Amino acid sequence: MTPAFDKLLDALKRLPGLGYRSAERIALKLLVEKPQWAKDLRQALVEAEGAVQACVDCGNLSEGDLCAICSDESRDRSTICLVEHVPDLFSIERAGVYRGLYHSLGGKLSPIHGVGPKDLNLSSLGKRLEREEVEELILALPNDVEGEATCHYLQEEVVGDRAIKISRIGFGIPSGAGVTYSDSTTLRSSLEGRRSYG
Amino acid sequence: MTPAFDKLLDALKRLPGLGYRSAERIALKLLVEKPQWAKDLRQALVEAEGAVQACVDCGNLSEGDLCAICSDESRDRSTICLVEHVPDLFSIERAGVYRGLYHSLGGKLSPIHGVGPKDLNLSSLGKRLEREEVEELILALPNDVEGEATCHYLQEEVVGDRAIKISRIGFGIPSGAGVTYSDSTTLRSSLEGRRSYG
Repeated sequence: MTPAFDKLLDALKRLPGLGYRSAERIALKLLVEKPQWAKDLRQALVEAEGAVQACVDCGNLSEGDLCAICSDESRDRSTICLVEHVPDLFSIERAGVYRGLYHSLGGKLSPIHGVGPKDLNLSSLGKRLEREEVEELILALPNDVEGEATCHYLQEEVVGDRAIKISRIGFGIPSGAGVTYSDSTTLRSSLEGRRSYG
Repeated sequence: MTPAFDKLLDALKRLPGLGYRSAERIALKLLVEKPQWAKDLRQALVEAEGAVQACVDCGNLSEGDLCAICSDESRDRSTICLVEHVPDLFSIERAGVYRGLYHSLGGKLSPIHGVGPKDLNLSSLGKRLEREEVEELILALPNDVEGEATCHYLQEEVVGDRAIKISRIGFGIPSGAGVTYSDSTTLRSSLEGRRSYG
């Protein structure tokens, strides 16, 4: 509605999950109703841009070389859970079901999108497998084509002959959902992943 | 996940329409994937904070004393459409159905929330009614209790004895919706607002 307002709208509109209406609502809130929030947001951006970096070991967000998880002595250092992206790691942490370390690849192998091994956070993974007493590498990658290819690559080229157990997270019907409305790929995973009972 | 990240999350989370997950997604996008977007957003905020102000006449967003609408000589200056908030004005402009001027009150009278006439953008409205050749004041306020009270106040105290026609926008069933699923308040407005046909 004014050039500076439209520019702010553009900067907001491209953020994930924001469309025209929500960006407009936020821009008006920040400029008209809550100018202090606009200042706070700027300040938080400056601080986070300066402070937040990738953990040199695992790729998680960090404010020093090592992230809070890698530098937590109480974590089980014999297990590394490998995830595609940092948000995956956040989700597993929030679930509170895992006490080992993580490694974020920052993507999956995808020749079709031009993502090769060099584009992934693999070199520090190799070093960790050398250096730390890792006994198990849990692959928490999706079971799509790219996830499968990445798992295969990790097994063959990264872990190789090392005496490290490799596992993949289970795929199947999510808790609370039933068989009736599950899609065929999920049902296939669920049957392939069946376990003996009783 | 780090103090600076959490602070950015807090600054985003309180924005209208953003919850925890969407704020986290945006924060990660800005810090990990698109650092340039974070800089652009900060820059746009600085510029908009410095440039955007309220139009001294109508209260619309403006980068000078007068907004683009008030300073547009081709607009019909005999009609003022009174709205509660600037976003209402944006919506009417987007619809492209009105060529007069606007006036944004910045709220509605609400004794229960401590909003009195002094909290609304009323003084410049009085001046405009004195100064300009206004023939009609269209009240585009909602038909809730506060909207009704505000309309009544405007009629009695602001327009008073001036020879200005006052009208209110129509209330009823929105285009495309039917009678079956309309709520009783809407149906009442719709019947009260019936017009002779044929």
